[in-house]
Amino acid sequence: MSRINVTYRVHSDAADIEARAQAIAVEQSVEMPVAAIKSDYVLNEILGRVEDIADNGDGTYQVIIGLAVETTGFEAAQLMNMIFGNSSMHTAVTLLDAEFPKELSDTFGGPRHGIEGLRERCNGAGRAMTCSALKPQGLLVEGLADLTKQFALGGIDYIKDDHGLADQAYSPFAKRIPACAKAVREANTETGGNTHYIPSLTGDLDQLRDHVRIAKEEGLFTMMMPPMVVGLPSFHIIVRENPDCAFLAHPSMTGGGQIAPVFLFGKLFRMLGADAGIFVNHAGRFSFPKETCRALAGQCLADWPGIKACTPVPAGGMTLARVNEMLDFYGRDVMLLIGGDLLLTGDRLTEATREFADTVANYAA
Amino acid sequence: MSRINVTYRVHSDAADIEARAQAIAVEQSVEMPVAAIKSDYVLNEILGRVEDIADNGDGTYQVIIGLAVETTGFEAAQLMNMIFGNSSMHTAVTLLDAEFPKELSDTFGGPRHGIEGLRERCNGAGRAMTCSALKPQGLLVEGLADLTKQFALGGIDYIKDDHGLADQAYSPFAKRIPACAKAVREANTETGGNTHYIPSLTGDLDQLRDHVRIAKEEGLFTMMMPPMVVGLPSFHIIVRENPDCAFLAHPSMTGGGQIAPVFLFGKLFRMLGADAGIFVNHAGRFSFPKETCRALAGQCLADWPGIKACTPVPAGGMTLARVNEMLDFYGRDVMLLIGGDLLLTGDRLTEATREFADTVANYAA
Repeated sequence: MSRINVTYRVHSDAADIEARAQAIAVEQSVEMPVAAIKSDYVLNEILGRVEDIADNGDGTYQVIIGLAVETTGFEAAQLMNMIFGNSSMHTAVTLLDAEFPKELSDTFGGPRHGIEGLRERCNGAGRAMTCSALKPQGLLVEGLADLTKQFALGGIDYIKDDHGLADQAYSPFAKRIPACAKAVREANTETGGNTHYIPSLTGDLDQLRDHVRIAKEEGLFTMMMPPMVVGLPSFHIIVRENPDCAFLAHPSMTGGGQIAPVFLFGKLFRMLGADAGIFVNHAGRFSFPKETCRALAGQCLADWPGIKACTPVPAGGMTLARVNEMLDFYGRDVMLLIGGDLLLTGDRLTEATREFADTVANYAA
Repeated sequence: MSRINVTYRVHSDAADIEARAQAIAVEQSVEMPVAAIKSDYVLNEILGRVEDIADNGDGTYQVIIGLAVETTGFEAAQLMNMIFGNSSMHTAVTLLDAEFPKELSDTFGGPRHGIEGLRERCNGAGRAMTCSALKPQGLLVEGLADLTKQFALGGIDYIKDDHGLADQAYSPFAKRIPACAKAVREANTETGGNTHYIPSLTGDLDQLRDHVRIAKEEGLFTMMMPPMVVGLPSFHIIVRENPDCAFLAHPSMTGGGQIAPVFLFGKLFRMLGADAGIFVNHAGRFSFPKETCRALAGQCLADWPGIKACTPVPAGGMTLARVNEMLDFYGRDVMLLIGGDLLLTGDRLTEATREFADTVANYAA
């Protein structure tokens, strides 16, 4: 039976680490005293196995546990239960990585479009892509549509809803999406451009489906969801049901590192179908180290048989002044997302957006 | 407009705390530079407000932010986005508590049955309740049904699936649930008892609905779900669609404390409809402090206008030897969950289960 090899970082004394590793193997599989298990099948095939323990030399250990892939039922919620569910309650345990066997990644299938698909949509072959965000929530539909048009007139590739834009009374989804889609169509007609509007989908699976339907009726086929908020199963089902749509994963509720972001974006969200992953860039409003960002982008793009590349989307307080530095850092396989800094330009929004798009288009590494 | 007053613990220098608090208020509401906001409505009604900052004297501060309740759209996923979504990525920020306005708690409605409803189901008026867990996964349906019968013959109140029992090839949900339900019916007929079997529901919303249907067809009306795994919206929708069912919340993926468990179980899961919350007891396999457990149980049971009490279910490596100590600690408003320690008794399982049930029934505080 294939195993998922899951890597945890465990704070432990040297004297305790073997017992702790064994305890994780039990917790993440049979979750009961092994002495009480009589079935050879359970003991040989289902019980988690300590595959490796390596001393990091800093009071922590990297522990690799082999978990039987059948325990996941090949379903997203149960996958999460198995790789981290109960152990998440141990403050001393971090989920660092997992090697998913091919039958599991084939089941979920990864991004349906990937970075090249997103490039194709915006005629962005061979270059980095640009994105901005509609904010703030609280603006009425007309205000948001007006902002959308100004962004689109600037020739940006993608305009996404702020993840705070859900289905609130002041800008209901069913009114906001048609209005913003129309604004982009009008701007594209005017400029001959190819800007895409990305609605943010939130809520339960019924609502997500309803929102997808509304978006598609407006000719929109790129959307955003926060997997940790709507739940991994809902995220994946929406991906699976809509192979004509590309999906950005939003990082809301991804937490402060108890699940390593490199794994979360580059492996888990990607396997479940994220065509792009928005994460917080170094030296912005959040505190991801530079090396985490580099590793995250690298993992999103890394070769993975049968699984397309997920577009890294560094964000979180990025500025126009940093565009060249970010392109130097990430290369062309990236989508740059700048929201607030563009909005700060006020009456110059379209002009500033054009400068952003041009800077990216003209960048020559 | 009503506000949700959210309390965060923030690691900060004294010099920075006001700016950090203001940054959280912005991040959890408009998520953009305030200087770029022109709308008075947004500035006055939607922008988060720093309501209080208190020095904990240990390098941390308690910061209270007032968030407009309308930003939640009165929906579970967006509620999570608003109270912690992006700030979850700050390692220095912990979500400690939130005061939900009545229009929000009325919308979600809390437990449909609560602790008294669970007592009524098992003729447990005036006493603590007992529960055990079916394990390990990997056993075939017949093996699980046999264990179920042995537990039920011992007169326990509830028998829950291990949360690892999902819809795996070795014990598919659609076969396991009828078999275990039948085992309990047979045992109840034999003993005249009133044991209830609690299936664990996992998966996406379609699967959850399918599983609920299968369970109800077997006459089962008490079920378990892991809210953080299936997603808060799915958890709540299943509660809402099935007012005849009581639901236990399982703690899988609740994490190592970045969201305070007292809040998560006593406020959030409870408001979304958890009739009982399984949490890890002190001095078991996990490291919750005693005082956290006491506070958690207290919050689950605390008066809340219009919202029923949620049953505290301390678990995680509990033993028969600790039953009296746990009853001394928690009182009668509790459901004691002992799994592995009962299973360790092997051929004495029914007898040991009977001792567990009798000890709880005969306990006189």
